[in-house]
Amino acid sequence: MVDLVIVGGGPAGLTAGLYASRGGLDTVLFEVGMPGGQITTSSEIENYPGQQTVISGMDLMQNWLPQAQHFGLRYEQDEITSVSRSGDGSFTLTAASGKTHNALSVIFATGSVPKLAGFEGENEFRGKGISTCATCDGFFYRGKEVAVIGGGNAAIEEAMFLAKMCKKVYLIHRRDSFKAATATITRLNATENIELVLNAKPLKTLGDQSGVTGITVAFADGTQRDILVPGIFVFVGRTVINNAIKDANGDFICAVADNGEVIVDLNMRTSVKGLFAAGDVRIGSPKQVVCAASDGAIAALGALSFVDELKAK
Amino acid sequence: MVDLVIVGGGPAGLTAGLYASRGGLDTVLFEVGMPGGQITTSSEIENYPGQQTVISGMDLMQNWLPQAQHFGLRYEQDEITSVSRSGDGSFTLTAASGKTHNALSVIFATGSVPKLAGFEGENEFRGKGISTCATCDGFFYRGKEVAVIGGGNAAIEEAMFLAKMCKKVYLIHRRDSFKAATATITRLNATENIELVLNAKPLKTLGDQSGVTGITVAFADGTQRDILVPGIFVFVGRTVINNAIKDANGDFICAVADNGEVIVDLNMRTSVKGLFAAGDVRIGSPKQVVCAASDGAIAALGALSFVDELKAK
Repeated sequence: MVDLVIVGGGPAGLTAGLYASRGGLDTVLFEVGMPGGQITTSSEIENYPGQQTVISGMDLMQNWLPQAQHFGLRYEQDEITSVSRSGDGSFTLTAASGKTHNALSVIFATGSVPKLAGFEGENEFRGKGISTCATCDGFFYRGKEVAVIGGGNAAIEEAMFLAKMCKKVYLIHRRDSFKAATATITRLNATENIELVLNAKPLKTLGDQSGVTGITVAFADGTQRDILVPGIFVFVGRTVINNAIKDANGDFICAVADNGEVIVDLNMRTSVKGLFAAGDVRIGSPKQVVCAASDGAIAALGALSFVDELKAK
Repeated sequence: MVDLVIVGGGPAGLTAGLYASRGGLDTVLFEVGMPGGQITTSSEIENYPGQQTVISGMDLMQNWLPQAQHFGLRYEQDEITSVSRSGDGSFTLTAASGKTHNALSVIFATGSVPKLAGFEGENEFRGKGISTCATCDGFFYRGKEVAVIGGGNAAIEEAMFLAKMCKKVYLIHRRDSFKAATATITRLNATENIELVLNAKPLKTLGDQSGVTGITVAFADGTQRDILVPGIFVFVGRTVINNAIKDANGDFICAVADNGEVIVDLNMRTSVKGLFAAGDVRIGSPKQVVCAASDGAIAALGALSFVDELKAK
């Protein structure tokens, strides 16, 4: 029985590991992929507070695991497939390797991943002109033209965010109308430098070795159009990685919002005592490295108090 | 009329400035003292995520203002003494210099400061063995003996946090009993390596050029005792810097908790539209640099949306 298991090794999980280990909790972190998480695939980051230059996600995250390990964090490359609560209130975790682990507390920090719009070159050009985060990457296209793909509320919000700094935004949507609040659509229509490209399906990325140069879209009537832009922003939803907190019946073991994000309070506590969520898997996450890191620190401080109280009983 | 005024230039305010400016808001930040905030007085920090070595607070914060200014943040050294809401929903801010400023939105990030216990050398040895944050500095005293000063819930919690990593903790309290939850006091009494030093008033810091070597306490009966420790943790409450959000009648312009901390939701929104709070001034802040920074980013993203909607009307 360990004090704490952290599920996920992105900015949230690694910071939770740093704070929990430094605070004296016997802690194991499980990550199925690379330590550092999704941000390691980003090529340019300039908004991590205190950062002096534009660096890659890989460089930004390079020291996070060693920093936590220095304070005693144990790291295992394995996938946690199931988290369940035992009768005594502790947690049992099952890993893809077949091993099971017992823990007094759990921080769930598995993140979420952007869905693909399904056009040619979408993966190859990610980080080379294709982005899924306007807050992160919009500034790199200041004064330039960009394309946004999607028709939901998030796509419209991100298009309007980009319109403030970009010369022009092409909003490419498969249908002829948007699924969003009326007020949002009114604001969209009032934004002069957004051109709506409707009934249009993204077909393929145009680009070369230096990156994206445009996108070809196909219209419902069979015609095509090349939109020449150096940046493409894809917002067609996210998949929250929450399978491990479903029980055998497919029900979540804690309260989860309709979109699959785990509901937490300001202290990153879920509806289940001793279970915390941090980073992009939690409700309303701003999807920024510094915010995920903060979530991890808060969750770890919560786990420290929780385990302390448990052991005093 | 500017889009956003940020009050306070610590980690929360500076990160808010970074995100707001980078997101295209015309933003002015006011700070009365040094940019960087309270953390700049810390001599050793090793838990800012991604940090490679133990560094001073001054070094940690050195690049934060230039990073935000690079994206257009305007910085003014002045004290905002009053924030009030105008009839049209915008904000009027008065500065100590006599100037007034108008803004569509405000991020209030003034922080809080630890209260002094009032013993000799308390200020001189701050950062040289006197600390007000166990989460931050406890690890530096691993395996050593430390003294904790205070008798409230926070002091007891911090003493128990320190007891897990320190050889022994002397808990120095002026009275003969504690003001805390019964469960907390039960846990305190069950912690073997905490020695209660009751009816004891801290008198003076013992120390030399290398830092703290102990503390002299005076008992109610007139006797004194030297407690020889390399670290002293003071937890006698905090003063939340919230005067500027009081109106002429002394009432707060937004919802504030009994302890003076501004009430926010997960998005750092206060009870007043367009007014956000971030960092140690907000309710339940973990008082960590990375958490304050995250608050600032979240508040800035909120201000961006808020101003956007306002301008579309």
